Amino acid sequence: MRKEYLMTPGPTPVPPEVLLVQAKPIIHHRTPEFSSILAGVIDDLKYVFQTKNDVLLFASSGTGAMESAVINCFSPNDKVIVTSNGKFGDRFVKLTETYSLNVIKLEYDWDKVVNPDDIKDQLKKNSDVKGVFVTQSETSTGVLNDVQKIGQIVKDTEAILIVDSITGLGAVETKTDEWHLDIVMSGSQKGLMLPPGLACVSVSEKAWEAVKNSKLPRFYFSYEKAKKSLEKNTTPFTPAVSLIIGLSEALKMIRKEVLENVIRRHSILAMAARSGIEAMGLKLFAPPEGRGNAVTPAWVPDGVDGKALVKMMTNKYGITIAGGQDHLAGKIFRVGHLGYFERFDILTTLAGLEMCLCELGYRFDLGSGTTAAEKVFMENQF
Amino acid sequence: MRKEYLMTPGPTPVPPEVLLVQAKPIIHHRTPEFSSILAGVIDDLKYVFQTKNDVLLFASSGTGAMESAVINCFSPNDKVIVTSNGKFGDRFVKLTETYSLNVIKLEYDWDKVVNPDDIKDQLKKNSDVKGVFVTQSETSTGVLNDVQKIGQIVKDTEAILIVDSITGLGAVETKTDEWHLDIVMSGSQKGLMLPPGLACVSVSEKAWEAVKNSKLPRFYFSYEKAKKSLEKNTTPFTPAVSLIIGLSEALKMIRKEVLENVIRRHSILAMAARSGIEAMGLKLFAPPEGRGNAVTPAWVPDGVDGKALVKMMTNKYGITIAGGQDHLAGKIFRVGHLGYFERFDILTTLAGLEMCLCELGYRFDLGSGTTAAEKVFMENQF
Repeated sequence: MRKEYLMTPGPTPVPPEVLLVQAKPIIHHRTPEFSSILAGVIDDLKYVFQTKNDVLLFASSGTGAMESAVINCFSPNDKVIVTSNGKFGDRFVKLTETYSLNVIKLEYDWDKVVNPDDIKDQLKKNSDVKGVFVTQSETSTGVLNDVQKIGQIVKDTEAILIVDSITGLGAVETKTDEWHLDIVMSGSQKGLMLPPGLACVSVSEKAWEAVKNSKLPRFYFSYEKAKKSLEKNTTPFTPAVSLIIGLSEALKMIRKEVLENVIRRHSILAMAARSGIEAMGLKLFAPPEGRGNAVTPAWVPDGVDGKALVKMMTNKYGITIAGGQDHLAGKIFRVGHLGYFERFDILTTLAGLEMCLCELGYRFDLGSGTTAAEKVFMENQF
Repeated sequence: MRKEYLMTPGPTPVPPEVLLVQAKPIIHHRTPEFSSILAGVIDDLKYVFQTKNDVLLFASSGTGAMESAVINCFSPNDKVIVTSNGKFGDRFVKLTETYSLNVIKLEYDWDKVVNPDDIKDQLKKNSDVKGVFVTQSETSTGVLNDVQKIGQIVKDTEAILIVDSITGLGAVETKTDEWHLDIVMSGSQKGLMLPPGLACVSVSEKAWEAVKNSKLPRFYFSYEKAKKSLEKNTTPFTPAVSLIIGLSEALKMIRKEVLENVIRRHSILAMAARSGIEAMGLKLFAPPEGRGNAVTPAWVPDGVDGKALVKMMTNKYGITIAGGQDHLAGKIFRVGHLGYFERFDILTTLAGLEMCLCELGYRFDLGSGTTAAEKVFMENQF
């Protein structure tokens, strides 16, 4: 017998409370009942986004939301700065190039943070920049970029700041209004504790100005259409009804725990994962100045086959962790702790890692990882 | 946030596969559809009971099944030997006395096994003994009594052997036919991985003879009525429909894992629990010659309040373990690993125990318990 443990940075585990409401008989979306649920969801999302801006919903994955920012806010040949220090930064590069924007790329090694000063320099050199794209929490590497600092830089320019917070929202602080983040996006299968299929985007006043000037064609992902419908508590196209009903329940859980505590819990889980992994003698991938709370990547130790490690975790112990992506495939592994996670999820993953690494010939003190994590949990209650 | 971990010897966790079939719309029990499910369940139960005897089902708890053995097989003043080395042995004493049987009590300290030779002696002294009652796996103490040996002794007498295997079935070997066990009973919320509410009883040819001679009144728990209905693939009274449908799924899981592997898994989980607990410097409650696979009880260490330990496990970590019962309340704790349990359930419980014991002032090497259990799991695959 084997139970399944989903320890990836997305999809993430879905709480039974959410699964149960999603299992209710489907209701029609053009009804007062659904409109009332939708209105509540939007209110609660604003609480999580820490914003008074509009928050729009799309039946799509996170990539759909990323694309929506490009096609709603820009026109061909618009000059934009796109930062990238990982796979999802690269995706913004591809997206902006696909729509023929004039892209200034700021690319970094994947184990480095985006340097806000580089953005400042480029903005000085290019007064016609219309947008800056940043990935807050890089799912591919666990690196956290300082969008607060970047917000301070971008706010006094003509450019809008577009933040991919797909694995950030609900795991790290994302103070949309206070930090001047014009567009922030997330996906359902992350900190919002839902199955995949739903994306949400916040749009600031400054961003709405950009939307007005944008000339790229759009229909399904149109911010104007979505906003106009939301004013009547509905959606322009068929919404993902059961996911929105699930989201309503998940947001109630976040409200009940209180957002501050949710983020604190994530930071403690991340701290325990890091302590455990380091106690086992492994090296963390992300730099000390940019370690997020959503996922902890570490280097596979010398002599161990990283792909075999990830495979053994699943096949032998039922624990799904993520491997490295692109050029990091087989070289790092990534432990997710984003959304419906608590202490024993981390301890389970660390115990599984210990048993697998031991079997794969890595020499270390068996139990050192779990013990270090237990210490973190005893010293940091949630 | 806290997740809930049910680590008691009953009720035990229910697999999602079983929960899902139980959530299907209810069907009527007087239908070919239900009859076919019932027939399959009885076949699969015979596989788990390792018997060709009749296996009967009752919508009741395990105690109902215990009572059924008394009222179906005996008459007032019948002489019976009732062994007891725990709370559930005591229950057989109460039950047989309630129905005015002539009870020879063989009582033992709760940390001792029932001595088969004592039964042999009593049977020699009392040739008119009609039944011998034994608890195979004492839920209150984790002690395992040797029903195989007792079966060898009782089989050549006029007496029938009644075995409470409520927490034994599916966790330890219970070879009903090979060991000459005339009545064996279990409950749904144990090794069968279901919610409470269903009991099953196997009845041998020799036991059916006793049923014929029994003069105690019975209606709901009548073995004759149950058998007669089962011959037509139905039940005399309304069955617990959704539990039986759930049981059908649970038994499929057991068939798929193969009974031998199910029992092996339980023995490895028990070994890991014992190793972990002993590595933390705690003393096991059950004697080495009688340690079952269903539940591991241990003495609360000196200076620690046992009730506070159990309470802290639940309140702080969401882990429900059992305390001691009756005179052992506050003195021992019991970790269940019966039914839908695997490695990380044990590791979670041990990690929780370590953190709680540490906080309650007990001095030991933090991590020693989980490390010892990891070693057991690495050396014993399932």
